[in-house]
Amino acid sequence: MPRFRDTELSLSPSVPRKERVKDPKNIMRSVDPAALEMLAHYKDSGIITGYDRYVAQQPQCAFGYEGVCCKICIQGPCRVKGMEGAKSKGVCGAHDYTIVARNISRLAAGGASAHSDHGREIVYTLLAAARGETGDFKVKDEEKLRRVAANVGISAEGKDVNALAEEVALAALNDFGNITSEPCRWLTSYLTDGRKKKFEDCNIAPTSIDRAVVNLLHSTHMGVDADPVNIIFTGLRAGLADYTGMHISTDISDIVLGTPEPCVSEANLGVLKPKKVNIILHGHNPMLSQTLVDIGPEMEDEAKAAGAEGIQFSGICCTGNEVLMRSGVPIATNFSSQELAIMTGVADLMIVDVQCIMPSIRAVAECFNTKIVTTMSNSKIPGSEHIAFDEKHAVESARTVIRMAIDSFKQRQGKEYFVPDVKSKVIAGFSVESIMNLFSKINADVPMQALIDEIEAGRIKGVAFFCGCNNLESVHDQNHLEIVKGLLKENVFVITTGCSAQAMAKAGIMDPAHVDELCGENLAAFLHKLEELNKDTLTDGLPSAFHVGSCVDCSRAHDFLTLMAKTMGVDTPKVPYVATAPEAMSEKAISIGCGFVADGVPTHVGTMPPIEGSACVYDIACRIASDVYGGYFIFETDYAKATEKLLAALEYRTWKMGVHKAVAEKFDAPLTQNY
Amino acid sequence: MPRFRDTELSLSPSVPRKERVKDPKNIMRSVDPAALEMLAHYKDSGIITGYDRYVAQQPQCAFGYEGVCCKICIQGPCRVKGMEGAKSKGVCGAHDYTIVARNISRLAAGGASAHSDHGREIVYTLLAAARGETGDFKVKDEEKLRRVAANVGISAEGKDVNALAEEVALAALNDFGNITSEPCRWLTSYLTDGRKKKFEDCNIAPTSIDRAVVNLLHSTHMGVDADPVNIIFTGLRAGLADYTGMHISTDISDIVLGTPEPCVSEANLGVLKPKKVNIILHGHNPMLSQTLVDIGPEMEDEAKAAGAEGIQFSGICCTGNEVLMRSGVPIATNFSSQELAIMTGVADLMIVDVQCIMPSIRAVAECFNTKIVTTMSNSKIPGSEHIAFDEKHAVESARTVIRMAIDSFKQRQGKEYFVPDVKSKVIAGFSVESIMNLFSKINADVPMQALIDEIEAGRIKGVAFFCGCNNLESVHDQNHLEIVKGLLKENVFVITTGCSAQAMAKAGIMDPAHVDELCGENLAAFLHKLEELNKDTLTDGLPSAFHVGSCVDCSRAHDFLTLMAKTMGVDTPKVPYVATAPEAMSEKAISIGCGFVADGVPTHVGTMPPIEGSACVYDIACRIASDVYGGYFIFETDYAKATEKLLAALEYRTWKMGVHKAVAEKFDAPLTQNY
Repeated sequence: MPRFRDTELSLSPSVPRKERVKDPKNIMRSVDPAALEMLAHYKDSGIITGYDRYVAQQPQCAFGYEGVCCKICIQGPCRVKGMEGAKSKGVCGAHDYTIVARNISRLAAGGASAHSDHGREIVYTLLAAARGETGDFKVKDEEKLRRVAANVGISAEGKDVNALAEEVALAALNDFGNITSEPCRWLTSYLTDGRKKKFEDCNIAPTSIDRAVVNLLHSTHMGVDADPVNIIFTGLRAGLADYTGMHISTDISDIVLGTPEPCVSEANLGVLKPKKVNIILHGHNPMLSQTLVDIGPEMEDEAKAAGAEGIQFSGICCTGNEVLMRSGVPIATNFSSQELAIMTGVADLMIVDVQCIMPSIRAVAECFNTKIVTTMSNSKIPGSEHIAFDEKHAVESARTVIRMAIDSFKQRQGKEYFVPDVKSKVIAGFSVESIMNLFSKINADVPMQALIDEIEAGRIKGVAFFCGCNNLESVHDQNHLEIVKGLLKENVFVITTGCSAQAMAKAGIMDPAHVDELCGENLAAFLHKLEELNKDTLTDGLPSAFHVGSCVDCSRAHDFLTLMAKTMGVDTPKVPYVATAPEAMSEKAISIGCGFVADGVPTHVGTMPPIEGSACVYDIACRIASDVYGGYFIFETDYAKATEKLLAALEYRTWKMGVHKAVAEKFDAPLTQNY
Repeated sequence: MPRFRDTELSLSPSVPRKERVKDPKNIMRSVDPAALEMLAHYKDSGIITGYDRYVAQQPQCAFGYEGVCCKICIQGPCRVKGMEGAKSKGVCGAHDYTIVARNISRLAAGGASAHSDHGREIVYTLLAAARGETGDFKVKDEEKLRRVAANVGISAEGKDVNALAEEVALAALNDFGNITSEPCRWLTSYLTDGRKKKFEDCNIAPTSIDRAVVNLLHSTHMGVDADPVNIIFTGLRAGLADYTGMHISTDISDIVLGTPEPCVSEANLGVLKPKKVNIILHGHNPMLSQTLVDIGPEMEDEAKAAGAEGIQFSGICCTGNEVLMRSGVPIATNFSSQELAIMTGVADLMIVDVQCIMPSIRAVAECFNTKIVTTMSNSKIPGSEHIAFDEKHAVESARTVIRMAIDSFKQRQGKEYFVPDVKSKVIAGFSVESIMNLFSKINADVPMQALIDEIEAGRIKGVAFFCGCNNLESVHDQNHLEIVKGLLKENVFVITTGCSAQAMAKAGIMDPAHVDELCGENLAAFLHKLEELNKDTLTDGLPSAFHVGSCVDCSRAHDFLTLMAKTMGVDTPKVPYVATAPEAMSEKAISIGCGFVADGVPTHVGTMPPIEGSACVYDIACRIASDVYGGYFIFETDYAKATEKLLAALEYRTWKMGVHKAVAEKFDAPLTQNY
């Protein structure tokens, strides 16, 4: 019996809620050897980290965990209990399905807001550069600018680079504030025709990013929408607003900072250098961090004058991914272990911008010689230093920050430190452009056909996109690593972003030396063939999984999918492509997930969003979404089962393509899924 | 000792949390005689209403109630316990102050979204009308159109009505989507110069309504802003976005539907007529409901042909207020008792649009002969009928709905009903324009001076604005009525909107016959003087409290304040003006409150928002806000204490004006409040 017959029938996660957090105190809460070494070293220090706080929060409120706690009006909190009687609904009369749908959709609104607001900041930087209002930034990648302009339908004819950049920036801003009924340009320009029609038919294409968010908050306000299908589909619209904001972020970042090309680097705490000035870049907005990295060399002498061997930048979360992708800056660690980077004692300064920054870093930094510097007016931490960053004073702010770090380095001398000698080699820097460059050596006219040929021949099973976040509910990095290992072995082509990419980077999965050990035979052969054909430019080979960037670069993963669909001549729901957020944590993960589901992708989530409180909403996410959009959620916390379910989803699609003819012949009953 | 010395020192609510809900089952949960009669009649029926559900939800989760339950990322829910150790922070390390500030600010974002999205719908209606795309709406009040255009700096010169209307509509839409750094036009055009400068200095003037909401969601996303002052002030920006959206709503509604003038009507369930076709208008958007009311007369014959004595419209919540203000349609009831209107058995059809519609009305309607009709694509209730409403098919939809009601009336014949014979006479329809009209008979040049003179002479103590919502946590209507009675007796001039106005309307406070009994001597004399001078137009006299409209018409209350400030030649924090939401419930109440605090107003909230979990945030709301903006929150659930605190705030300001010189001389120590 083929795999997908079984999993078709098991929509629910295989581990019941009550068994999910077993003996939280008695298991190691990470599989990262550097993190484990740090935690062991500081076991009796009294320093509290996220790992401890997660355990201390157990048991967590089951109502909130399952999504049936409503705090949307101040008659609450209402917690729905039982199936009938006065307690079975909120004070206003809202059913569990309304409450769960509202809560989960509002998470998507939060995620869309974070991603798109990040994009907006970057667009204003391009606008200032184009108008000559800043000398700190300029159009670095004119070719990408012209490509993006063409994609979104802006003629470049007769325009100089700045005039074109201004027009592109204003068009991007219009996607935030458009008042007409036209859908966002950065959305429709990158879709298949099938998706465009689907989103139009279902009225879920946002006409403006901001409006989609405000509409959703209105719909989920007390006493507005009570219909769970309607609410969830409004959440998918927020997911598409998120998609739009991410695409703008990626495109404009590439224009201003350059489109990534393969690069060599390292990952994990071992990248920190006790004898250097260590500056850790943490957050998501690449503008300040890239400026720091760019002016670093000219500040080396100042660092050396202070007795250091130089300046060592390293990254955490997506700011780290951005500077890794474009400048090969090493990864210190990912989300869950961010405090541990400070606890090495050698982090002289951690500069943060927005998102996923634990407020606790300041408290931990109190015990060490680490300065915490916040930079954004909407993201401060009481007690930390604040150096306002804006596009007009980036270089000046960057110099100030580096001098603070050098000063901190001086104060650190003679103090204890503990840096685990753990790091892995990393090959990163895979924009869609750079992957297509590689593929073009196999098929110069239609590069993506190189991969499609492998899939159609049954040698590669499809594509899995691994996406962001750690969640302290999970054993740190375990889901990422176990699932990716499972899929690589089964010859699935893997692309990845965010903290998922960082988990793989730290674990050596992006070290070309491990390809033969990690990948199935066919996938390894394909990668080696690409290496061989690209040996002029690829000095260090190819990794088992392709790092495509930060969490806004999930847009690259969408583009990869669209390109596959267009190459195959089908709409996205027919493409053997799955997405997984093995340790989803933030609201951004929810909105990204909604975007992928709308884009026709089976989307696995390995930690549980608050949805179990309504069987109806659960079913909308896992089945009705599939009937309407072709994409659907797979909620599964067990990594082995998750791997099976992802493979089943891929095999189902390749079977529909006629690849597994032998399997197909065994069937005697029609399948229930219909797309 | 004057009143304000004592209350200065008692910031905290006088009733501790645990004592707030005493014996929920053993007290009558309403003071509305019609509601009490209905509840008694259906005591053993098994029909569950909001009153029952509130009791069933007790005890409510204290973490959520106090604001220290965080569900913003899916590592949670985190509930902060104690002052130190791993449990004292969320998994990410967020302190109680960060969690509380985030939660409360997000409520403001929800409120701003609801109000402004409502405004946006109305602007699109004006735009369609101006462009000749609909025959169902047109500019009804050209004078208001020209006044609004002048206010927001649009020249009317040489423009015909539709050209001007189009320009005004597009300018209003620009306030939703503006991408420049200019603050919203509908905000700055209506402020004092002092407020404009203050908002600019503090960077809280929204440049676009939608962006302010998205910025806030981003700031409060996991790992972004941890600074409670920063977060709360971002919430105030959302409050000003709400203000902007409300002002647009009011202005454009007046332009399309007419500016309210005093009218005579009635309120409470006794307005329902068993022998008529009863259509209840519930929600907030006035467009469809006004259309229904306008075409009602031409459908009377169809109703009579079906055996009815005619068609009886009545309203609930702010759709009800809108048609009361413009067409004298009676009020059936307000928020908490909305289900009881159905339980009369004579409601043939309840048509709803958006906001404050209990999803339970459908379940209650199952037991009676009431059709529930939803009309907005973002606001559906499973199991109810949906008739899509848009500005281009309003009349057509309205006819369909009335025919459904007539059909329902036919089916109702012979069925039991129970309509309490309780209703009160109401004088409503007080736009700022119509109040100034009244005042102009005292001072034709500067109408507001009529009221200022009374205040400066010490005869009237100032102005109290009573604002929306019922909250089933409170005894229904009790806070509204007890506080207003207390203030009227002390010669406070009262204006009111929303469910607060409806509570007063039902209780007879808007019946001119009760002025002498309710009001202090000076206030009564002032009202009688106005009546006397306006007797040509005021056939039925003046009420004790002035109904200024629906909850978006809180903009009228802001305008009233600004007009007072300008007349006095001071900024708003010096104006003897207080606001109160005695039974605040929805997110809109939070955003309205934030707007009033930013506008320099002592703002009482009579039900507890989730803020008690952080002494720091509580203090920011009650004191730091005052230091920065002059306005501040007063949280007090006890109506007698609340009345004292509101009077104290007014007396403090009149004392600063030099009105209570005798009191001032008694002081020997400076006051701590500084504005």
